[in-house]
Amino acid sequence: MNSRYCVIMGGGVGSRFWPYSRKSMPKQFIDFLGTGRTLMQMSFDRAKSIVPIENIIVVTNEAYRDLVKEQLPELDDTQILLEPARRNTAPCIAWAAFHIHAINPDASMMVCPSDHLIFNEDLFRQEISHGFDFVESHDALLTLGIKPNRPETGYGYIQIGEKSDVDGILQVKTFTEKPDADIARIFVDSGEFFWNSGIFLWSAKSIMKALHDYAPDVYCKFEAGADKFGTNAENDYIKAKFAESPNISIDFAVMEKAPNVFVSCVNFGWNDLGAWGVLYEHSPKSKEGNVTQNCNTKLYNCNNNMIAVKRHDKLIVVSGLKNFIIADSDDVLLICPQSEEQRIKQFVNDVKSSFGDKYQ
Amino acid sequence: MNSRYCVIMGGGVGSRFWPYSRKSMPKQFIDFLGTGRTLMQMSFDRAKSIVPIENIIVVTNEAYRDLVKEQLPELDDTQILLEPARRNTAPCIAWAAFHIHAINPDASMMVCPSDHLIFNEDLFRQEISHGFDFVESHDALLTLGIKPNRPETGYGYIQIGEKSDVDGILQVKTFTEKPDADIARIFVDSGEFFWNSGIFLWSAKSIMKALHDYAPDVYCKFEAGADKFGTNAENDYIKAKFAESPNISIDFAVMEKAPNVFVSCVNFGWNDLGAWGVLYEHSPKSKEGNVTQNCNTKLYNCNNNMIAVKRHDKLIVVSGLKNFIIADSDDVLLICPQSEEQRIKQFVNDVKSSFGDKYQ
Repeated sequence: MNSRYCVIMGGGVGSRFWPYSRKSMPKQFIDFLGTGRTLMQMSFDRAKSIVPIENIIVVTNEAYRDLVKEQLPELDDTQILLEPARRNTAPCIAWAAFHIHAINPDASMMVCPSDHLIFNEDLFRQEISHGFDFVESHDALLTLGIKPNRPETGYGYIQIGEKSDVDGILQVKTFTEKPDADIARIFVDSGEFFWNSGIFLWSAKSIMKALHDYAPDVYCKFEAGADKFGTNAENDYIKAKFAESPNISIDFAVMEKAPNVFVSCVNFGWNDLGAWGVLYEHSPKSKEGNVTQNCNTKLYNCNNNMIAVKRHDKLIVVSGLKNFIIADSDDVLLICPQSEEQRIKQFVNDVKSSFGDKYQ
Repeated sequence: MNSRYCVIMGGGVGSRFWPYSRKSMPKQFIDFLGTGRTLMQMSFDRAKSIVPIENIIVVTNEAYRDLVKEQLPELDDTQILLEPARRNTAPCIAWAAFHIHAINPDASMMVCPSDHLIFNEDLFRQEISHGFDFVESHDALLTLGIKPNRPETGYGYIQIGEKSDVDGILQVKTFTEKPDADIARIFVDSGEFFWNSGIFLWSAKSIMKALHDYAPDVYCKFEAGADKFGTNAENDYIKAKFAESPNISIDFAVMEKAPNVFVSCVNFGWNDLGAWGVLYEHSPKSKEGNVTQNCNTKLYNCNNNMIAVKRHDKLIVVSGLKNFIIADSDDVLLICPQSEEQRIKQFVNDVKSSFGDKYQ
């Protein structure tokens, strides 16, 4: 059991929730559901129910060191891997694999994002345990595929192939990035497609071998310092070399290429907290359909709005808005129709063009 | 010339501009037009061009003592009269009159609000000088009536009567509070009605006599301490007795009753900065018709909005709003259609019912 590790990836910026999520305080560090625990803390709590605390690794950007230490005081400094640059998930996972492999060459790992929602945690634990069993007995890269309940166009899809020798785990036939609405409908109706959760399981050895074979430009940056991992020299090596790694996702670098990729088809109630609409959908609403987060409100002739405020004692008085997002964060206020939530990234880019990093 | 005094009344709360104007920082202390001078400072500057600085008196609520001292450092403490309670304009003016009369029994006074806009200051000075001449030679209560340029329903109106012996100054026939639209149209078309500016001129003796005759319940509260005014005992007397005075306006207490009330018909470009619409009207606009005060903005598909923010480095990103007011003040955000600006006072009252004084 002690060879099982959980790697929580928490270096993202969360710009689709801007300005509630800011570069200096991204969404994974926010108590988005008002439960008293941030998304990162909820991910940690789930990991803690699967592996011993000392086998939990958080990989994040070095800018978030203090946030992680503050929110997860149970972690030792050696359990927090601080990326000196943003290089997407492949280098992140490569580092975690080299790090864990140096500590325990027989380790198996779950890798997960820090900003998704999981509703049936018992089932989640069972599925993860099932997955660990599989990757500990197979040279396999396992991804969790979520049974889709709607033709979502914001997610990636996994097409299932041949069955494996283990119940509920199948070979992967194809990965498809965000499809258009017609294709998504066909995918869901076919029963052959599952949402790509970004939750992975593998042994350290298997992912290192796959990186070696299919992403050698990533692999070589870590392999060159192989003797440093798990020693005092690790951090200096990463500081010097991490940024040289290509900027590439693990899906693109490995999962879409390797032949030993499997999917575990699960249904534990999952949502990547990707944008305001998802949060709105999962939040308690007033009888007028308004969701208010973290603030006092007086609403007149208002329906189906999502109102989220960083400053917890702020009062929001609104008259005559329907289906809007109102997000206030100290020095930034965003007001836009919910139908435009996918434009928020563009707003953030426009703001960057005009004002530089000030409001990022 | 040294017997002429200017009394600036600046104790109001300005709730129609809430939350930009707050109880702790009412509109007269805000640089509303972005000129670098607050409305109070602009009133002071005008007064300074008419009378010697030492003849300027500011009457305000004691809560605003520090604001006045900070914004008008030229004033001596003895020139700032601090009301220990809110009692409308009659007690305010009575105190100023007793105070000035004690210093100079032959004084004449202009009394004006601190939160109006005056566009032709040269003409304003001429009219005030003309008015001082009149009240120094007549036992008269003179009010300035503004030639109306539209059937405004938010103002009080003065109906002119017989001419006086001085050009442009007439007897007052009636005062009418805010009329409905049909009546306002008749008033304006008749040429007999002028807007009540709330700017008054009189000698200290005349207003004290009028208070004695028509508002004895106000008058007696000050007369009882007549020997205290202009001495070190004045403030203690006011602290002990001011709140006992009835809460009543000078219009209702005196102007609508006294027989010696005159109006000077003027046209120097005047606006009481009563609500957002007035500010919107007088502010520079983008080509989409948006007015932004004190903030950075990124506006998409937005027209004719009034956006005002207290924190000067705040960024406001809005998509898809037309004809709205967006007013942000630290711990309060208001979003409402411009057509509802007269409801803001109600919003403030509702907020008070729910949250007490916290957001006032």
